[in-house]
Amino acid sequence: RIESDSSGSRFTPLVVLELASDTNQDAIAWLLSRIRDQQQDGGQLGPGVDAQEKENPNVFLVGATWQRLLSGAEDVGLFKEFNDGSMRGFTCANKHDFKDYQGDGDSFLSMAECQYIIKHLLDTLRAKQETHVPGHSEVKLYPGKSIVRRLQSKGILVQVFPLHEKEELKRLSFSWYGKVKLSLQPLDDIRHYYGEGQALYFCFLEYFTFALVPMALIGVPYYLFDWEDYDKYVIFAAFNLVWCTVILELWKRCSASLAYRWGTLSRKKAFEEPRPGFHGVLGFNPVTGREEPLYPHAKRLLRIYLVSLPFVLLCLYLSLYVMMIYFQMEGWALSVHDQEPSFWTGVLLFIPSIIYAVVIEVMNLIYRYAAEFLTEWENHRLESSYQNHLVLKVLVFNFFNCFASLFYIAFVMQDMVLLRQSLATLLITSQILNQFMEAFLPYWLQRRRNKKMMRKVQKRRTLEDKELPLAEQVRLEADMSTYLGTFDDYLELFLLFGYVSLFSCVYPLAAVLVVLNNITEVYSDAFKMCRVFKRPFSDPAANIGVWQLAFEAMSVIAVVTNCSLIGMSPQVKAYFPDSESQLILWTVAIEHVLLAFKFILSFLIPDVPKPIQISLARLEFESLEALKKKKETYDYNAFL
Amino acid sequence: RIESDSSGSRFTPLVVLELASDTNQDAIAWLLSRIRDQQQDGGQLGPGVDAQEKENPNVFLVGATWQRLLSGAEDVGLFKEFNDGSMRGFTCANKHDFKDYQGDGDSFLSMAECQYIIKHLLDTLRAKQETHVPGHSEVKLYPGKSIVRRLQSKGILVQVFPLHEKEELKRLSFSWYGKVKLSLQPLDDIRHYYGEGQALYFCFLEYFTFALVPMALIGVPYYLFDWEDYDKYVIFAAFNLVWCTVILELWKRCSASLAYRWGTLSRKKAFEEPRPGFHGVLGFNPVTGREEPLYPHAKRLLRIYLVSLPFVLLCLYLSLYVMMIYFQMEGWALSVHDQEPSFWTGVLLFIPSIIYAVVIEVMNLIYRYAAEFLTEWENHRLESSYQNHLVLKVLVFNFFNCFASLFYIAFVMQDMVLLRQSLATLLITSQILNQFMEAFLPYWLQRRRNKKMMRKVQKRRTLEDKELPLAEQVRLEADMSTYLGTFDDYLELFLLFGYVSLFSCVYPLAAVLVVLNNITEVYSDAFKMCRVFKRPFSDPAANIGVWQLAFEAMSVIAVVTNCSLIGMSPQVKAYFPDSESQLILWTVAIEHVLLAFKFILSFLIPDVPKPIQISLARLEFESLEALKKKKETYDYNAFL
Repeated sequence: RIESDSSGSRFTPLVVLELASDTNQDAIAWLLSRIRDQQQDGGQLGPGVDAQEKENPNVFLVGATWQRLLSGAEDVGLFKEFNDGSMRGFTCANKHDFKDYQGDGDSFLSMAECQYIIKHLLDTLRAKQETHVPGHSEVKLYPGKSIVRRLQSKGILVQVFPLHEKEELKRLSFSWYGKVKLSLQPLDDIRHYYGEGQALYFCFLEYFTFALVPMALIGVPYYLFDWEDYDKYVIFAAFNLVWCTVILELWKRCSASLAYRWGTLSRKKAFEEPRPGFHGVLGFNPVTGREEPLYPHAKRLLRIYLVSLPFVLLCLYLSLYVMMIYFQMEGWALSVHDQEPSFWTGVLLFIPSIIYAVVIEVMNLIYRYAAEFLTEWENHRLESSYQNHLVLKVLVFNFFNCFASLFYIAFVMQDMVLLRQSLATLLITSQILNQFMEAFLPYWLQRRRNKKMMRKVQKRRTLEDKELPLAEQVRLEADMSTYLGTFDDYLELFLLFGYVSLFSCVYPLAAVLVVLNNITEVYSDAFKMCRVFKRPFSDPAANIGVWQLAFEAMSVIAVVTNCSLIGMSPQVKAYFPDSESQLILWTVAIEHVLLAFKFILSFLIPDVPKPIQISLARLEFESLEALKKKKETYDYNAFL
Repeated sequence: RIESDSSGSRFTPLVVLELASDTNQDAIAWLLSRIRDQQQDGGQLGPGVDAQEKENPNVFLVGATWQRLLSGAEDVGLFKEFNDGSMRGFTCANKHDFKDYQGDGDSFLSMAECQYIIKHLLDTLRAKQETHVPGHSEVKLYPGKSIVRRLQSKGILVQVFPLHEKEELKRLSFSWYGKVKLSLQPLDDIRHYYGEGQALYFCFLEYFTFALVPMALIGVPYYLFDWEDYDKYVIFAAFNLVWCTVILELWKRCSASLAYRWGTLSRKKAFEEPRPGFHGVLGFNPVTGREEPLYPHAKRLLRIYLVSLPFVLLCLYLSLYVMMIYFQMEGWALSVHDQEPSFWTGVLLFIPSIIYAVVIEVMNLIYRYAAEFLTEWENHRLESSYQNHLVLKVLVFNFFNCFASLFYIAFVMQDMVLLRQSLATLLITSQILNQFMEAFLPYWLQRRRNKKMMRKVQKRRTLEDKELPLAEQVRLEADMSTYLGTFDDYLELFLLFGYVSLFSCVYPLAAVLVVLNNITEVYSDAFKMCRVFKRPFSDPAANIGVWQLAFEAMSVIAVVTNCSLIGMSPQVKAYFPDSESQLILWTVAIEHVLLAFKFILSFLIPDVPKPIQISLARLEFESLEALKKKKETYDYNAFL
């Protein structure tokens, strides 16, 4: 049952707030009044609230008036296309100069943008004189504290999520994965619906796939004609190294172009709020002067270097230990098979790899929880810093866990045939496992839940039309799994990139496999975004952030491993029959030259394409000139 | 003879303009009127002009009213200390809120700042409808072209330089180098007098000297006790590697602190004008929309990669060739000495090194001119881009020229004793040569000129007091050599840093020599700044720019060379008696670990100290809040 807001104006419901079922009625009334109250801060109407009654009584829908959304767009520093085609920070004062602004139309701000604005408004809803939430004396407040974040960290606010748009979603999913097609992904539509962060991920996935195509094409003949000729491998590896550097550099330019087009490139970030879990002694923030918890930086550093770092090292050691057990098992299985070869011993040969592959996945999973716990415990003030530390921890361990055995085979056992086999096995298994865990399992769970829900709905009312009533839609979506961000998707790409680049010269087919995987990945990711998960809030990202760095680090490691692999190949060894040290010296020299070349290359290729550089410089110049002009008017006035 | 300006108000003379003696009188009158005319652009009085008559009739003094200077300070984006101790961009509107502002006092803007402002005003003096300079039809102009830059590039404007302040200079030079003292350099005074760029150089020189003291102290016992023990050298080298990284990282923080204190850290650069020599087809600048010469970027890239790059490579080859001749001469001298040792053959042994050292200096000098010519010919639009390309060219060649022989001795001849000798010889010779060329020679020339001038002055008038009349001061200073910027000083430090870091583990005394050199360098540089050269315009630098990168690159190369030197030492070789390749592999592995550690370290140490980060964030936050408040007022007004 949907009712209009008490203020009389109707809102499009945009964001769902779900409070815990045991929330005190006073607290609910207070929260709703605070949300409705926004007008006295902003000068316009605040978001309205619709209560969803029955079954789960504490679900609320939040919407806002057009004026409030526009002024919110200015608050969050949204960039929109200006009349002259450039991207400028939106201001209500000159709203008519923006390209798509047609009065109070609905097409100027996309729904994702509206939802982002409402999230921002909710997040910046601050306590005034309240010392605690009415009816919940354990939930302390102090002036200036973000109410929603405190409710979230105390578990009273169960979830906040934006609603899907059925029609829009149907259109998007059809053009995205609904038809078998050769065209590219509808990136602008994805950005329109899910925001810039998501769109950048899908763009990166697509870019990465296309960038691998040349590698894959060159790799195929190696497989087909069984070229065991290492001279050719050397050429292939050298090509790969340059290629990796070039594609990563070009990606920066590509991402800058997109971010410019989407208006996130030069968007100034608002001052970041402390993350929900951040705690400390109340004090005054030296930057804002506002009262907020403070936590000494030195204490955090101690936690990082004395607890987290040793823990990570211990885990790495453990992973190494498990790997050694795997090699022992492998050796044992081989010896059993050699002594008395039979069908069962043949099967036995596969057992260790399978166990090891599963153990790797399990360890990654457990470690992931441990890393989250530790990073939470490090008590970072900002979400961005939390994310960076989490990514670093997970990345290092995953890299080690996935590639340690390959490194061991390559450089300690020096068994290229086994390396190729292990690489292929690992790559293929991890792809299959990932696709399964990531898309089909959640989809299957989702379907079961949906069916149950539908049956309930049908029981209650006859289906007059196909359209689900809003109340049911909200209930359905509230039960969907929460999308936890692009972290896992990027991590997967990162590991795939590792398989391709680290050992490309012994297994040229890797690129082909990864290309194939990426194509299915586009479909399964798109599917899971549209059907399996709750709609995420859009995230105005300007680049892929810390992942760019991670991929670049991987490409540096790739230079080292590829050079050593080439140096170890018998064909190259044949050039230096007398002296092994000559061979090593040459290998090292070439490696250094390649590394130097890589750095020079990344220096020479500008990160932002020229036309965008010019647009940005023009905006900068215009704002300087405008300032000067204003000053002159001021001087003139002063002289009058 | 000094006369007051026609507008009636008296100016302190700040900047000297010297026009060519054959300049047309119309052109002079036009230029002076344009300089006086500024008021209609700025709203305040423009710079006034005093003509120095007799002898060199075309020397003019430029000054400005206090109002003009203040508004100019706002134009150039000067940062000054605010009442609350933070640094803020100066605006005339709230001038009373700045700390040292006491009405129309003279102490708020330093003379160096006033001179910088006047230079900016002169540089932005733009042609209006003139198609050429009156009386000089060959000097074309177009609307918006900077008049002064055009006059400069056509040779009509011979020089523009700021005047010294006799009293101030005497005080500064006394506290700087006039007394034997243990205190630090008066950096704030240097900045006050010469501007931030100079002060940062002297600060870097001082910092670098202090940073080397621990190295020097550790190095002394190696020399005194003749420790030929390579184990100890390994420790020394490892210490050096970490130390180099740490001091370079800490320097960034130190320079950021200084730049913050001096207000250049967050100063926004005004839009850069094309440099005087830039030429091209007239068109419209895509950024400003102004008419100015355009030169296609592709053409410049062609010139760089097809001409400059091959030329630099050719020069490197030539330098290598000269080095080989030196080694042949050395070998020949040695064989002559071995056959029939006598006093004269003993002397002959030194001849090749001396010739080579001189040839290196000559080659560096010739190459420098060639590099300047080439970089000029590459036709860079911006002075900064010109400087970067010039620095890169000169750096690569100088590095190669100075260190190639050392590398050859170290890694091809593997003669550590000879390496130590050559290193010492090169280091000491280059120090002596440099100090001589840099300070004493110009000083001596300057003294001769001064004496001549003084004699002339004394001939004309009896010395009533010690104070030189302004006219004579201007004439004296006009004849002084022009200071060509900190380029050569940094280059010298860069090469010294190379001597210390690249081969530190074979010659620990290098650090001691460099420390001693730097101490004398402070004095000779200070002396030459105060007495030998014209006062330079201050340069509001926020850091040492491209040199930071150069020093970091050197420290990376140092890791590589030191690791290889240690790997080649007999003591380390003794650990691997059986297998040379094991030794090499270990060396390479350690080198990689060190390099990785270096990168991680440079990542972990934040570039800007925490308190300054907070101040900057606070300013950012305040400006965001102010914007919001303004917007709210606007909204409020719109609602009324």
